[in-house]
Amino acid sequence: MDRILVEQKVLSENDRLAARLRERFREHGILCVNIISSPGSGKTSLLERTLERLPKKTRVAVLTGDIQTDNDARRLARFGFPAQQITTGGACHLDARMVERALADWRLESLGLLIIENVGNLVCPSSYDLGEAAKIVMLSVTEGEDKPLKYPSIFLKAELLILNKIDLLPHVPFNIVQARENARSIHPSMDILEVSCTTGD
Amino acid sequence: MDRILVEQKVLSENDRLAARLRERFREHGILCVNIISSPGSGKTSLLERTLERLPKKTRVAVLTGDIQTDNDARRLARFGFPAQQITTGGACHLDARMVERALADWRLESLGLLIIENVGNLVCPSSYDLGEAAKIVMLSVTEGEDKPLKYPSIFLKAELLILNKIDLLPHVPFNIVQARENARSIHPSMDILEVSCTTGD
Repeated sequence: MDRILVEQKVLSENDRLAARLRERFREHGILCVNIISSPGSGKTSLLERTLERLPKKTRVAVLTGDIQTDNDARRLARFGFPAQQITTGGACHLDARMVERALADWRLESLGLLIIENVGNLVCPSSYDLGEAAKIVMLSVTEGEDKPLKYPSIFLKAELLILNKIDLLPHVPFNIVQARENARSIHPSMDILEVSCTTGD
Repeated sequence: MDRILVEQKVLSENDRLAARLRERFREHGILCVNIISSPGSGKTSLLERTLERLPKKTRVAVLTGDIQTDNDARRLARFGFPAQQITTGGACHLDARMVERALADWRLESLGLLIIENVGNLVCPSSYDLGEAAKIVMLSVTEGEDKPLKYPSIFLKAELLILNKIDLLPHVPFNIVQARENARSIHPSMDILEVSCTTGD
């Protein structure tokens, strides 16, 4: 019981900070998206494929969360856009305070799009609002079509499902029709996009 | 600060319950292992391939954790051994109390091996002792060779790394030598096993 009360307190403090972030994003006309998936589904690869195709004058920046290492920020900084690592130390998700701190050094008026790559975890990040306009959930076809049913919270909260690694479909037992049905049984209006970050499709 | 104190309290209560479970496993001569991985790495498939090869008189039982659905317990019950689902409702990990409750209906004296399949999550389950003799971490080659560096806690605590989906190596950019090096940079004495639960290798 104590634990539930404290979690509620932590979440409501997070909601307060997230609301403040959302207001700042609105003031500066920034679209912020929060990308969530299991470890290794391809979030960083998706961002690499996206950033490399954007015109150099695009006002985009990336925050990328991990428990340890700044590998992802280094991978993403190569494209010339602002990219910053948030290393959580042990926390299994990003929270609004981490995002607020990371933004302290950036001039928000110079940004139009902020992409947040969350810690690889299909569970806990879904509970923490970061002030984003939309959550995006990514699922790779190697993970199995049952995942929307097993991890319903994030599929309910995300506006868009990106099905990644479709180049591997011939090699894995993945029923893509069933995957779409499972996702829409949780979230009927969910948009679904099928991509391969390896081949670029 | 409040949150940290309460987490410590929750963990020390969990440690107390886990110690009690460990003592019961020892009394009854039960080997208990706790398998942890990302969603979709192949924990349930590994158990299917394992159970189907065991002699029918083997004294093995399985507890399988998920946030929602009892799909996995149904998949595993087909092999004729006791298999029970623990549905956590929202919790991102199993804890010792859930295991204790699940075992209440089983005669421990009839068991020799208890396999616990944790919730699909490479982060939080590593913090919760379930009274097991050893943790096993599973990583599929589709997830990338950097995962031991990004999620060091579970690679430090697990005795064995099972690298799964090696049948997909020709189709994915995965450096298996680097993966082994990364795992052993975190945990030098770690055992590593390479398998394919799809082909049965």
